[in-house]
Amino acid sequence: MIESIKWHNGQLRLLDQRKLPHQSIYNTYENANAVAEAITQMVVRGAPAIGITAAYGMVLAAKNNNDSTHANLHQALATLAASRPTAVNLFWALEKCQQLINQNKPSDSLVEALEALAISIHQEDIEQNQLIAHFGADFVTAITPSKATVYTHCNTGALATGGVGTALGVINQLHENYNLAHVFAGETRPWLQGSRLTAWELQQQNIPFQLVPDSSSAYIMSKNKVDAIIVGADRIAANGDVANKIGTYSLAVLAQYHNIPFIVAAPASSFDLTISSGDAIAIEERPASEITQIQGIADASHTTSQITSRIAPENCPALNYAFDITPHRLIRAIITEHGVIESPSINSINALLT
Amino acid sequence: MIESIKWHNGQLRLLDQRKLPHQSIYNTYENANAVAEAITQMVVRGAPAIGITAAYGMVLAAKNNNDSTHANLHQALATLAASRPTAVNLFWALEKCQQLINQNKPSDSLVEALEALAISIHQEDIEQNQLIAHFGADFVTAITPSKATVYTHCNTGALATGGVGTALGVINQLHENYNLAHVFAGETRPWLQGSRLTAWELQQQNIPFQLVPDSSSAYIMSKNKVDAIIVGADRIAANGDVANKIGTYSLAVLAQYHNIPFIVAAPASSFDLTISSGDAIAIEERPASEITQIQGIADASHTTSQITSRIAPENCPALNYAFDITPHRLIRAIITEHGVIESPSINSINALLT
Repeated sequence: MIESIKWHNGQLRLLDQRKLPHQSIYNTYENANAVAEAITQMVVRGAPAIGITAAYGMVLAAKNNNDSTHANLHQALATLAASRPTAVNLFWALEKCQQLINQNKPSDSLVEALEALAISIHQEDIEQNQLIAHFGADFVTAITPSKATVYTHCNTGALATGGVGTALGVINQLHENYNLAHVFAGETRPWLQGSRLTAWELQQQNIPFQLVPDSSSAYIMSKNKVDAIIVGADRIAANGDVANKIGTYSLAVLAQYHNIPFIVAAPASSFDLTISSGDAIAIEERPASEITQIQGIADASHTTSQITSRIAPENCPALNYAFDITPHRLIRAIITEHGVIESPSINSINALLT
Repeated sequence: MIESIKWHNGQLRLLDQRKLPHQSIYNTYENANAVAEAITQMVVRGAPAIGITAAYGMVLAAKNNNDSTHANLHQALATLAASRPTAVNLFWALEKCQQLINQNKPSDSLVEALEALAISIHQEDIEQNQLIAHFGADFVTAITPSKATVYTHCNTGALATGGVGTALGVINQLHENYNLAHVFAGETRPWLQGSRLTAWELQQQNIPFQLVPDSSSAYIMSKNKVDAIIVGADRIAANGDVANKIGTYSLAVLAQYHNIPFIVAAPASSFDLTISSGDAIAIEERPASEITQIQGIADASHTTSQITSRIAPENCPALNYAFDITPHRLIRAIITEHGVIESPSINSINALLT
C-alpha cells in the first residue's frame, strides 16, 4: 500500500507529493518548523494527512524542547496551525496535542505521550478509512446500477490520508466489490492533484479510468453515464456545508442539474461543529504562480527532474482560491466512519456524531 | 491591432498561436495542405479565423493548380474541410469557394475570384466584429450595472477572428465605453486559450482582469460580483443550441443557478440552419496528450523556446472533448452583426437572420 506518512524510530518521513507521479522520494523531518513548511509547500496535502503530520510535528517539537515553560511547544503549535487555514483536521490534531501539553507532564513522558497520541491519530485514520470505504461502497451500490460510473475530484486516496483514503477509498472498495464500471478523474487545476496523484493511484490499483479537464465535467454528465459524484472534505460545518478543493461546489451544482447524487466522504475529524455554516470557513488563497506556472518533466530528456514552465504572459494577474464551499442542500450524503448521513443537516449530523 | 491572419502579395501568413504568449512568430503558407495542417495543429484557431484561413488556403490551391478538371481544387476543399470538425465557419467559407469553382472560370480569373472572395470574407469579418462589439456592449450595459464585471472563456478576440473579436470584442467595447469594471478570464484547459491568448490580449489593451482556473467559476459566481458571462460560438443550430469550447456548457448551467445572464457573441456565419438542434453537431475529440502534457517556457533559462512537459503518469488515459453543446434555453441572448437575438429559438433566429 502507498504510505504518504512514515514514522519510524522517532523519525518523520513524508512522500514528497510535489514530485509525483514522476518520482517517489521521501523527505525526512526533524523539527516542527520544517514540518509546517512541508505542509504549506504541499509536500503533504489532504485534510486527514495534514492532521496526522502536524501531530508528528509536535512529537518532534517535544523531542527538541529543553525549556520547561513549554514556550517552544506553544510556538510550534502556533507555527503548525498557521501552515494552512482551511482543513480542520490540522486544528483538531493540534488541539489534542495542546491538551496533553497543558497537563504539565515531565519532558520525557510528554514526548512519549505525544508520540502515542500521534501514532493513535494515524492508526485511527487507517481504521476510519476502512469503515468509510465499506459504508460508502454499500451506499453507492444501493443507489446506483450494479456497476457504477463515478466521477471524482482532487486526490482523496492513500496520499491524502493515513490509510486507503476517503472518496478514493470508497472507489477502491467498489472496485474490489466488482461494483465499479469506470472512474472519471477531474485533473483538478491548478495543482493537478487529479493528474498527478489520483491518476497515479488509480493506475496502481488497475482501476479503469480516464483523466478529464475539470471544465468537461458538465458535458460528461450530460453525454456519458455518470451514476455518482464522490469527493472528500477539508472542513464540514455543523449544518453540513462542506469546504473542499476548488471545483467541488461547481460539481455539486452541476450534479443537481443532471440529477446525479453528490456524495462526500470524510472522517468525523473533518467536522467543525463550532461553526454553524460554511460562511464562517476561512478559504485559503494561494499564489498566482500556481496558475501561471506549471511543473512537469521533459519525457524526451530521459530525466525525472522537474521543470517549472510559464504558461501565461509575464506578470499575469490570477485569482487562486484553493477551496470552495458547497452548501449542504446540494449534498445527497456524507459518509463517515460512524455511518452515512443522508441529506445532511444540523439534526442528522448531531444524531450520528454527538 | 493584433492580426492573426495576414494576406499580402499572394502570401498567407499566420501568427503561430501555439507559441503565444512567449513569442509572436508568423509562419508563411504556400499550399492548401499546409494550411489544413496549420488548422488541425491549432497554429490558427477560433471559428471565424478558421473560416478566413480556409478561404485563403483555397486561393493558394487555385494558384498551384494546373489541372483544368479542378480535381486538385476538389481535393483541397476536402482536405481543408477535414482539418477540424466542429466550427461551421470552415464549411461556410469552403462552400462559398466551391460555388466559385463550380462556375468553371478560366484558371487565372478563378484565382482572382477566389482571392477577392477570401479578402471579402476577411474584410466582412472585421466589419461584423465591430457591429457585434457595439450591439453586445450596448446590450450588456442595458441589463447590468453601469460598470459590469464579466466572466469569459477561451479566446474570442483578435486572435480568433479577422477583427477585434466576438465576445472579447464586446468586452473591449465595454472598456472603451467606460462600462467595464473587471474581467475574469477562465484559463480554458486543456489548451489554455485563456492563459495564453486572452490574458495576452487583455494585457495589451490594459483591461483589468484576473486569470482563474475553470473550476473556480462557480465559486466566483457565488462569492464575487459577476454581472454577465459572455462567450463565442463554433456552431449554432437552427434552434439556438450552441457548440463552443469545452467548459461553455458548464458555465451556462452555473450561470442559470446563480441567475447571471449568459450571452453568446458570434457572426451569422456561425449559424448552421441546416441542423435543427445541437444533438446533430459533431464534437471533436482531441489527443489525450493535450491533457497529460503541457507546453510552456522556462523563465529562468532566459529563452523563449518552449518545453513540452508531462504532468500525469506515463500512459495515463484521458478523455479530451474539444467542444460541448449548450442548449438554447440556458442562453439569454446571442449577439450577431445583425442585432441581438434574445431568448434564442427557431422563431427569433429566423426573424433576424433569414
